[in-house]
Amino acid sequence: MSKGCVFGVGLGPGSQDLMSVRADRLIRGATHIAYFRKKGRRGHARSIVEGLLAPGVVEMPMEYPVTTEIPFDDPRYNQLLSTFYEHSVAQLIEMTEAGCDVVVLCEGDPFFYGSFMHLYTRLRNRVPVSVVPGITGMSAAWTASGTPITWGDDVLTVAMATLPEDTLVERIRQTDALVVMKIGRHLDKLRRALKSAGREADAWLIEYAAMENQRVVPLKDAGDKVPYFSIVLIHGHGRRP
Amino acid sequence: MSKGCVFGVGLGPGSQDLMSVRADRLIRGATHIAYFRKKGRRGHARSIVEGLLAPGVVEMPMEYPVTTEIPFDDPRYNQLLSTFYEHSVAQLIEMTEAGCDVVVLCEGDPFFYGSFMHLYTRLRNRVPVSVVPGITGMSAAWTASGTPITWGDDVLTVAMATLPEDTLVERIRQTDALVVMKIGRHLDKLRRALKSAGREADAWLIEYAAMENQRVVPLKDAGDKVPYFSIVLIHGHGRRP
Ligand SMILES: C[S@@+](CC[C@H](N)C(=O)[O-])C[C@H]1O[C@@H](n2cnc3c(N)ncnc32)[C@H](O)[C@@H]1O
Ligand SMILES: C[S@@+](CC[C@H](N)C(=O)[O-])C[C@H]1O[C@@H](n2cnc3c(N)ncnc32)[C@H](O)[C@@H]1O
Repeated sequence: MSKGCVFGVGLGPGSQDLMSVRADRLIRGATHIAYFRKKGRRGHARSIVEGLLAPGVVEMPMEYPVTTEIPFDDPRYNQLLSTFYEHSVAQLIEMTEAGCDVVVLCEGDPFFYGSFMHLYTRLRNRVPVSVVPGITGMSAAWTASGTPITWGDDVLTVAMATLPEDTLVERIRQTDALVVMKIGRHLDKLRRALKSAGREADAWLIEYAAMENQRVVPLKDAGDKVPYFSIVLIHGHGRRP
Repeated sequence: MSKGCVFGVGLGPGSQDLMSVRADRLIRGATHIAYFRKKGRRGHARSIVEGLLAPGVVEMPMEYPVTTEIPFDDPRYNQLLSTFYEHSVAQLIEMTEAGCDVVVLCEGDPFFYGSFMHLYTRLRNRVPVSVVPGITGMSAAWTASGTPITWGDDVLTVAMATLPEDTLVERIRQTDALVVMKIGRHLDKLRRALKSAGREADAWLIEYAAMENQRVVPLKDAGDKVPYFSIVLIHGHGRRP
């Protein structure tokens, strides 16, 4: 019997019609889907495809192990996650061995800071895997800002707010255009880094880009809490004929 | 009479089914389309939508003025382009004043190093403009490479090969993951910069990502000519549970 294929499908930033035509077709035609979610949650990826799924589709939520008790830099944290990914991969392989294709729902673009990559590297030598790129959250963010992000030979730097403060300062100083993701509880640090680099006044905060509750605000006017789906950006200025 | 709207629509990297559902709908429903092209060419953006257009659609190709005689850094180059953009904008405004919506076809994502931005900044205070983000060429490139681009807190730097060699070296040294675009006749310089930064061996060349003639090759094994649609990338390694 021929094996099924795992499709890692980019859903784009959140609006259903910003999914690609290929993603839309794969999702509507899927008999088996899988997606990450936090325990006790619906799952954001799952909610994006609400209303598109065929009746009777088999759903496999992959629930992140609760890790709040274990600090991020503890080796047990990595081990817990690793076990979780191995387990998910075993389930996916089981489905494909039974001859089924499985569509794994991925927020944004699967290969750009996505969790799917942890499955992908474990799957790729064992079963057929096909990846469908998607519109990134940052593309939706700069579109929402109403100003192009990069011009001419601008350099764009994408950095995570989880980086050490001095690394952030250095990166922010040296770039033309900037995108910062994974902000959460690192907002204060990011603000300090932007200030040290002398660029706080140019920074915009985009929450929930391309979603219903989208919000665009100068970072200086934002409060001191941001949701998970938040991006800070600084626009480049480049050459402009 | 109510004015029409200009839609700047991201087409994605080149494959028709990597267009967003929103883009697909707008293009199929368009009565007026506009797109850039070189004189005497079909136009790449136009060829992506081949077969999708409604019968009788009005087409407005915007032909780049021939600029090979004028060097890039000559002020006349900028002036020539500026005049060209102004003229295109005047035509678009004329269409919207007649009450028509116009779909401007944009390769990749319109706000990411796109020519549409030069129209956008001139249009936005004069007529309604709506921008539809798209999958970037670089997303298609790293997807084609079969390896995720960024993990954990990797920094991604996007740089144009048109930059001075020493700037390239510095940027390449300081980043985890790298994307280089606009390579063309700057390939030798880019290779030297990668070598100086000690990272030549990690670089991949992706030509025509998500197009029929897609090609993925280690940069060291590539020849000394690359097509316009070429991206060089270095994958990040980040944290990996
Ligand atoms: C684990 S990364 C996933 C990125 C995703 N693969 C992509 O291509 O955009 C999660 C981070 O992406 C950013 N993000 C993704 N989509 C977003 C959206 N629609 N609006 C705002 N931020 C978004 C946030 O910074 C969030 O912390
Ligand atoms: C003027 S920029 C336009 C970028 C576009 N707006 C985007 O979002 O990808 C043109 C450069 O993008 C890169 N590029 C765009 N699409 C590509 C593709 N499908 N394959 C390879 N390179 C591509 C090439 O480096 C090319 O020189």
